[in-house]
Amino acid sequence: MLNFNYSVPTKVFFGKNKIDLLAENIKKYGSNVLLVYGGGSIKRNGIYDNLIEIFNENDINFWELGGVKPNPRISSVRKGIEICQEQGIDIILAVGGGSTIDCAKVIGAGFYYNGDPWEIVTDPSKIEDSLPIATILTLAATGSEMNAGAVITNLETKEKLGTGHPSMAPKFSILDPTYTFTVPQKHTAAGTADIMSHIFEVYFSKTKGAYVQNRMAEALLKTCINYGTKALQEPENYEARANLMWTASLAINGLLSDGKETEWSVHAMEHELSAFYDITHGTGLAILTPYWMEYSLNKKTVDKFVEYGVNVWGINSDNDKYEIAQTAIEKTREYFNLLGIPSNLSEVGIEAEKLKEMAKQATRRGKLGNFKPLTKQDVLNIYKKAL
Amino acid sequence: MLNFNYSVPTKVFFGKNKIDLLAENIKKYGSNVLLVYGGGSIKRNGIYDNLIEIFNENDINFWELGGVKPNPRISSVRKGIEICQEQGIDIILAVGGGSTIDCAKVIGAGFYYNGDPWEIVTDPSKIEDSLPIATILTLAATGSEMNAGAVITNLETKEKLGTGHPSMAPKFSILDPTYTFTVPQKHTAAGTADIMSHIFEVYFSKTKGAYVQNRMAEALLKTCINYGTKALQEPENYEARANLMWTASLAINGLLSDGKETEWSVHAMEHELSAFYDITHGTGLAILTPYWMEYSLNKKTVDKFVEYGVNVWGINSDNDKYEIAQTAIEKTREYFNLLGIPSNLSEVGIEAEKLKEMAKQATRRGKLGNFKPLTKQDVLNIYKKAL
Repeated sequence: MLNFNYSVPTKVFFGKNKIDLLAENIKKYGSNVLLVYGGGSIKRNGIYDNLIEIFNENDINFWELGGVKPNPRISSVRKGIEICQEQGIDIILAVGGGSTIDCAKVIGAGFYYNGDPWEIVTDPSKIEDSLPIATILTLAATGSEMNAGAVITNLETKEKLGTGHPSMAPKFSILDPTYTFTVPQKHTAAGTADIMSHIFEVYFSKTKGAYVQNRMAEALLKTCINYGTKALQEPENYEARANLMWTASLAINGLLSDGKETEWSVHAMEHELSAFYDITHGTGLAILTPYWMEYSLNKKTVDKFVEYGVNVWGINSDNDKYEIAQTAIEKTREYFNLLGIPSNLSEVGIEAEKLKEMAKQATRRGKLGNFKPLTKQDVLNIYKKAL
Repeated sequence: MLNFNYSVPTKVFFGKNKIDLLAENIKKYGSNVLLVYGGGSIKRNGIYDNLIEIFNENDINFWELGGVKPNPRISSVRKGIEICQEQGIDIILAVGGGSTIDCAKVIGAGFYYNGDPWEIVTDPSKIEDSLPIATILTLAATGSEMNAGAVITNLETKEKLGTGHPSMAPKFSILDPTYTFTVPQKHTAAGTADIMSHIFEVYFSKTKGAYVQNRMAEALLKTCINYGTKALQEPENYEARANLMWTASLAINGLLSDGKETEWSVHAMEHELSAFYDITHGTGLAILTPYWMEYSLNKKTVDKFVEYGVNVWGINSDNDKYEIAQTAIEKTREYFNLLGIPSNLSEVGIEAEKLKEMAKQATRRGKLGNFKPLTKQDVLNIYKKAL
């Protein structure tokens, strides 16, 4: 197990009607709120009206930044910073999924940065502080509600990059599983795939002796597998939605990764798909993952795949090592298919002629990952197999 | 899954040489430190000398409260508060195991309480604030280094009671597994049993649908089982000590219990043993646990024991339900025996004539637990079987 510093300062208010705690918790930071949200689903499902009522009843002033897109744009961040500066915003409340939350975080950090906010995305070391962030989560997926990271897309430069700073961790997040009842099938599936991918990125690691982290990762993977399909079949199954929601937050807040060398190569490969084609992040991850697994399987890594197959999928440990590994990979692919996610990049509109450019972009900072380090050629090979 | 509020504000600096972060983190709170420690093991293993060096090099003033006993006494708390008031202490640094940390916490809270500190133990609602607490952990057991609770013993009234307040959660805790290399076998074993008991108290619950919490609990139980005996055999096995140390903290910081109705009946029964006989807490827990399990096994609870047996001990799920349950309980008892812990209360000096009084004391606030609620007579029955 490697040395680590663990810090998860975000308070989580989890469960039905936890929005009742919103006003008192906002008021700890002030009365001027920037409300950040996405495409308007919160207007259709009643959350927006509920919020306005709470703001009015509690003398909370608010300004709005709606229309934040999936793969949130740096242009939205710029708009948000402008509102914060003009209106004297005390706290930014993101209501939505990871894109909305990520956008809010970079607005918060950009508020204190003297320059264009894209510079703090390309170079997180320039971040010094952030306005307080709070979130109301409406999609179980990115885990952004409980960590200090954010991913922002620049359509002009075709870049999708991660940034982060401790000050960007939400002060509190309201996780009400009923808010995810209306999430459409496609996004429920992509969200579950996103959670699973976050776990894979830290589970498949060369670090020895991080036993407790590995067992917890398996616990969270089993939860995704148990409830992902259930949430598709029964969108209003509270138990399924609650387990997925809490698992999403725990999967990427440091609990599984602290003490380990981590991977993040599938995410890096997917970021190029989203940056070039604006596809749904979780869908891209689910397509790439089994191909990445197959490509990474070798005599140095096989034991980790055996651990995965036996502990997560219950494959008989007496079987041949490679047989266990290949069965585990096949089960992973089958599960993503059960979620209704296609198996190939061409099915989501990715074209062969862009693969080379994307592979180059994905590796512009060097090789990806440590478990099985990937060169530009490796990434291209995986893209091609996945096409 | 039940509604919950999750908050774990303690920063954890985990790993070898993390003491290098001590001075800068203390100085965030001030320069006057009350150093709280136990029987002197930190003088024998060099930690004390290292601390003094760090204090002197960094112009940190310190006062000492040594000699804190296992099952820490309210009398030590009173002494500590006196020092804090006289010397203008800014932060309390507990160096030791759970007893030392618990003592420090109640000193911190007692500092702000206008009255005898035993009153804030019997009635936690009287706590309003605490001096900042920091810890350097030297024993993997109670998890006090990452939560806001404390257990204090009053030998005069023969009471051992839990208290707590959010302000008592340590600001930071330094967890260096090498500091536990010199923990004697008996306390390594009792510590592991204590961790396992914390997990059992929240795992065995009637709450439905807390799937992710249950899988994480099993992950932590497997870690204890995997490394408890290893740490006995190889006291300087870093991997074993690290996994036990981190598991101890995660077992009782809210991660496993939030969202569930919890039990805590074995702890309540054990607290009487410690209050009457001053035995090692973890030893008492390990003796009582299998008897409590046997007593709690019935047609309402058997499925939970099956879950435990199959998922933690790998018992074949095709077997008869009661057979699985009983095998799982037997394996639990055998594991505690492997740790060198006796199976009966009489072996640690408990006498038959005190059982009735202890059962009365244990249930003075009413029945214990929810999974299988225990009356005074139930507690007496368990004590008798365990004798």
